[in-house]
Amino acid sequence: MTAQPHRTDRTDRPTGPVRPTARARTTLRPVDTPRLTGGFWAGRRRVNAEAAIPQGPALLESAGNLHDLRLAAGTATGPYRGELPFMDSDVYKWLEAASWQLGPAGAPMDPRQRIGLAEETDRIIALVEAAQQPDGYLSSWFQVARPGERYRDLRWGHELYCAGHLIQAGVAHHRSTGRRDLLDIARRFADHLDQVFGPDKRIDGICGHPEIETALVELARETDEPRYLALARYFVDRRGHGLLADAERRVPGAEVVTGPGYCQDRVPIRQAEDVEGHAVRQLYLLAGATDVAAETDDPELWAALTRLWSAMTAAKTHLTGGLGAHHDKEDFGDPFELPTERAYCETCAAVASVQWNWRMSLLTGEARYADLAERTLYNALLAGVSLDGTRWLYVNPLQVRDGYRDRGSDQGSRRTHWFRCACCPPNVMRLLAALPHYLVSSDGEGLQLHQYATGSYAAALGEGGQGGEAAVAVETDYPWQGRIAVTVESTPEHPWTLSLRVPQWCDRWSLQVDGQPAELPLQDGWLRVRRAWTPGETLVLDLDLEPRLVTADPRVDAVRGCVAVERGPLVYCLEQVDHPGGGLDDVVLDADAPLTVKQRPDLLGGVSVVVASGHRRPARQEPGWWPYRRAEPQATVGEPLELTAIPYYAWANREAGSMRVWLPTN
Amino acid sequence: MTAQPHRTDRTDRPTGPVRPTARARTTLRPVDTPRLTGGFWAGRRRVNAEAAIPQGPALLESAGNLHDLRLAAGTATGPYRGELPFMDSDVYKWLEAASWQLGPAGAPMDPRQRIGLAEETDRIIALVEAAQQPDGYLSSWFQVARPGERYRDLRWGHELYCAGHLIQAGVAHHRSTGRRDLLDIARRFADHLDQVFGPDKRIDGICGHPEIETALVELARETDEPRYLALARYFVDRRGHGLLADAERRVPGAEVVTGPGYCQDRVPIRQAEDVEGHAVRQLYLLAGATDVAAETDDPELWAALTRLWSAMTAAKTHLTGGLGAHHDKEDFGDPFELPTERAYCETCAAVASVQWNWRMSLLTGEARYADLAERTLYNALLAGVSLDGTRWLYVNPLQVRDGYRDRGSDQGSRRTHWFRCACCPPNVMRLLAALPHYLVSSDGEGLQLHQYATGSYAAALGEGGQGGEAAVAVETDYPWQGRIAVTVESTPEHPWTLSLRVPQWCDRWSLQVDGQPAELPLQDGWLRVRRAWTPGETLVLDLDLEPRLVTADPRVDAVRGCVAVERGPLVYCLEQVDHPGGGLDDVVLDADAPLTVKQRPDLLGGVSVVVASGHRRPARQEPGWWPYRRAEPQATVGEPLELTAIPYYAWANREAGSMRVWLPTN
Repeated sequence: MTAQPHRTDRTDRPTGPVRPTARARTTLRPVDTPRLTGGFWAGRRRVNAEAAIPQGPALLESAGNLHDLRLAAGTATGPYRGELPFMDSDVYKWLEAASWQLGPAGAPMDPRQRIGLAEETDRIIALVEAAQQPDGYLSSWFQVARPGERYRDLRWGHELYCAGHLIQAGVAHHRSTGRRDLLDIARRFADHLDQVFGPDKRIDGICGHPEIETALVELARETDEPRYLALARYFVDRRGHGLLADAERRVPGAEVVTGPGYCQDRVPIRQAEDVEGHAVRQLYLLAGATDVAAETDDPELWAALTRLWSAMTAAKTHLTGGLGAHHDKEDFGDPFELPTERAYCETCAAVASVQWNWRMSLLTGEARYADLAERTLYNALLAGVSLDGTRWLYVNPLQVRDGYRDRGSDQGSRRTHWFRCACCPPNVMRLLAALPHYLVSSDGEGLQLHQYATGSYAAALGEGGQGGEAAVAVETDYPWQGRIAVTVESTPEHPWTLSLRVPQWCDRWSLQVDGQPAELPLQDGWLRVRRAWTPGETLVLDLDLEPRLVTADPRVDAVRGCVAVERGPLVYCLEQVDHPGGGLDDVVLDADAPLTVKQRPDLLGGVSVVVASGHRRPARQEPGWWPYRRAEPQATVGEPLELTAIPYYAWANREAGSMRVWLPTN
Repeated sequence: MTAQPHRTDRTDRPTGPVRPTARARTTLRPVDTPRLTGGFWAGRRRVNAEAAIPQGPALLESAGNLHDLRLAAGTATGPYRGELPFMDSDVYKWLEAASWQLGPAGAPMDPRQRIGLAEETDRIIALVEAAQQPDGYLSSWFQVARPGERYRDLRWGHELYCAGHLIQAGVAHHRSTGRRDLLDIARRFADHLDQVFGPDKRIDGICGHPEIETALVELARETDEPRYLALARYFVDRRGHGLLADAERRVPGAEVVTGPGYCQDRVPIRQAEDVEGHAVRQLYLLAGATDVAAETDDPELWAALTRLWSAMTAAKTHLTGGLGAHHDKEDFGDPFELPTERAYCETCAAVASVQWNWRMSLLTGEARYADLAERTLYNALLAGVSLDGTRWLYVNPLQVRDGYRDRGSDQGSRRTHWFRCACCPPNVMRLLAALPHYLVSSDGEGLQLHQYATGSYAAALGEGGQGGEAAVAVETDYPWQGRIAVTVESTPEHPWTLSLRVPQWCDRWSLQVDGQPAELPLQDGWLRVRRAWTPGETLVLDLDLEPRLVTADPRVDAVRGCVAVERGPLVYCLEQVDHPGGGLDDVVLDADAPLTVKQRPDLLGGVSVVVASGHRRPARQEPGWWPYRRAEPQATVGEPLELTAIPYYAWANREAGSMRVWLPTN
């Protein structure tokens, strides 16, 4: 809980993801060298650094990804392993995670483990380099399993998607370590793409799975090469014109027929009125389009992005921040179609949502994007990885029934060590490794604290950073406690503004500045404290963490007559293991009874549970065979039952059983 | 509405589907020559005979099915058309439908159309014969598109599934016309299968998609060849031992991973506690197992069948009788997982459910199977075909949202003229063509009226049919009117029992025998009237058709706080087109207001609508971006709205729009 002193080992180059250029028209900029030094996220990141990331190479080995690259490099023999064309991307995402972890904002790590991680990274980079073809192209799938079919299956081939992840890894590695080797590999691929794709080039086409767009903008930023930005913009704007329609593939046996909306190729993003299709594809595309909008000052694109965000949030977002309603085609679904047990909420969609929302925060300066990012981080995303960092969920349902049976696919409701399609685990790894960069921004006039995590954050203020450095240390036990203490560690002499977000869920808060209560108006979610600061001054924000019951828009049919328990940014759930003597399908919560909070340091790594009152419905009176009956009042007097709700992110870490976020009320 | 006089052109051979042998241990037997002469089902069957079935050959031509058979016969050239290995089965199901239609229980038909249908049937039978290989094998997919791979992909190849439909068509054709040509083709394939499959034969295996089981039993019945029954029993009992596990196929791109439960190959049927996996596969298997149980007197199998029926009905059946909760893998889902908008309820599952329930009715004599069959016929099944017989639904949701967008697959909520995977249309055709055979049974002691349809039904009573013929004429305007008049047309001199089912939905009824009120106890759903009858005597059953509101078991989360409107056997729904001025997502029904019935001969081919009171929720007060809020009482005072509910079977026959079966109440 003790904040480390702020260290000023900043370098000239940016050190995290999403670094707009000086030319970019964003409202905010990320700060350069954020550090998390304690508290909730430091704990999750420690597990990420010590357990999750280190196991990557062995898993990539056993799943065949590294073998496949060796086949492409000509240093191994045998059949191609894995049946998906994007096996390489898991390797790249792991390299990106390792790179952020090895960078200045990486979580603390045993020195020997750090050396081992660096060596593993170098070894895999050398393998990637060996697999790359002389012209810069790289895809183990098309080099080995489908030779001669390069770019013939843009809808399903994932070649540019993989290139995007390679580029992101190269940028991360360069930003974190200063080394150019992986960046150069990525750049060779990007140069190759720039020669092949474009309006007057060999292929006028796009990739079925977006990702290349945001990667190319980041590469343009890192290399100061505008061709990459132009190519990114081309990919954003050529989408939605049905270029992928000819490649429509129908998969025999699986009965999957995907229209152009699946790949966001039905309507150009500038005209789109709603998010649609495969959720992760849509979100990666939106992140890339936001990068393009930032770097090219494109008000039309900006307007489309805010419109799509509003449509998505109002009618297609689960309480947890989870996105993607359908298992079927991993689709966003129709407005207000938000099922609980069949919520898809892919872990990758949560990662992508955080990435997109951070970009929107920077672009617009608005607090609501951080609201959604916070909800997503603490719930939809974090549920994707077990507390020990070794087991994963691909989909994140909001309900598991008493009679749930695992059907043995990646998309079940039981954690597993890896997936056939292993996109999610390295995605979580890379986001947690880079997390400090998603928390605090600067606008030249001050600092904005979007998220609250114990650590230190600094930025050079004023035109071109010539106004001196503002640095603060944050100390908090958030989300368990609502008190956030911000101490000014260094400051220019002139006044500047410290902006604190009051989360959307919070109705009551209080602020003290230097020990004195401060009455400040809330400005679109921000408390903006402008003054001439003195080092050592402290600002304390107290957010009321009384647990609360929430309901959904009545058009969300799936949760009619139900409430959910929340406390602070955390969504809570019931698990079977805490409620012996029956299942959860029959539990009813008494909405009039008080909710109480209990600290449980012994439980699930230390959590606050919320205790509520309820009962179980008695067994049905009629033993008839038909589960429907005349609508007549039924007395449902059940045995009282104490309900113990745990944070949703911590579910599925004990024995398997049923789970519910939304609870019927009497 | 006028019953035709009973005609006694019965032949020595049985004339419909499911004809247990004299050795079979069933409680009931089907009657021999049922005739529908008017009323509701005669109307639907007229459309089936005049519009649906006649368009089959042209559709099978344009979809490529007939072309593929010509390729197999060597009488055409070009690429294989269609990407599914079971293209042939659509042809066979159409041949079965045409055969029943050409048989003695076929719907009345213009003589020239009848001749044309017979010619088309002959032409296609000749094509099937030409395509068959010398050893009896027949699969255009494996003969043309996958030569040399015969029986190498039992999990997905559908070879025995197609054989099953061929056999059923051959049996139907023989029973209906007395002709042996198609039966002989089928028998050659069956003999081939019997040489290849079995415990001591070349392949110890089963087909991924059940269907062969029931077909082989029917063939054994028709040919008096016990080898076919033995092979059917082998296929039933070898299932559930993981024989298909080695053939587990993972479909790249589609992310479909199906475990053994998908094909009912996880647990042997005798041990299974619940239905699972692909709903149509499960139901076809259960139908076949019921045939085996009937012909082999197998109490263990009988017990398993009743256990599985109870589990399915109690927790996995939609209000409409629709089965199969998941789009994802077309799976039954978990108990009480019964979503509305994403209800799968494949039309084929409704067909299969009627087929299975009829077999269970015969096996057990219990009325509840006819209850479920009635609900399925009037709702889940009939919704699958448009009122004009030319457009179809593959899936049958219970809700379509205001914001629904058709994603262009077979599984959308808009009717279409045909499907890429066209299993459903010919399935509906064959069931409607054979429908008279699913209504009435005999047990030697009398007749049992399972379903009420204007027509004539007769059976020979007594040991070996030596007790004389009992024949009745039924006249009714059911389901629009609750009065069912049954007139005895011929009778033996000795007393016999006329049994009338009182539907499970019916709380009040009255009975008159020969003009006098009769007070009879209900015996497990049956009113059993035993007496010495005189020709011309009439029995009148009046079922109360007051419309009613129903609710679901509270564990059906999807419809919490909702009611549905029913009248008689019909489930009702709201359609957007009847409720201008807003959408259906915001409609609330006033459960305390009365329901009224209006006859609308002008609407949807003539229906009774149910009018209810309700309102639309006003637009939300808070314009906030987040659709969840603190649980606090909200006044929802909306404009009163008259709700007009139409029978669910008639939905999607006017302009496209939203639809709801389950309606929130205030």
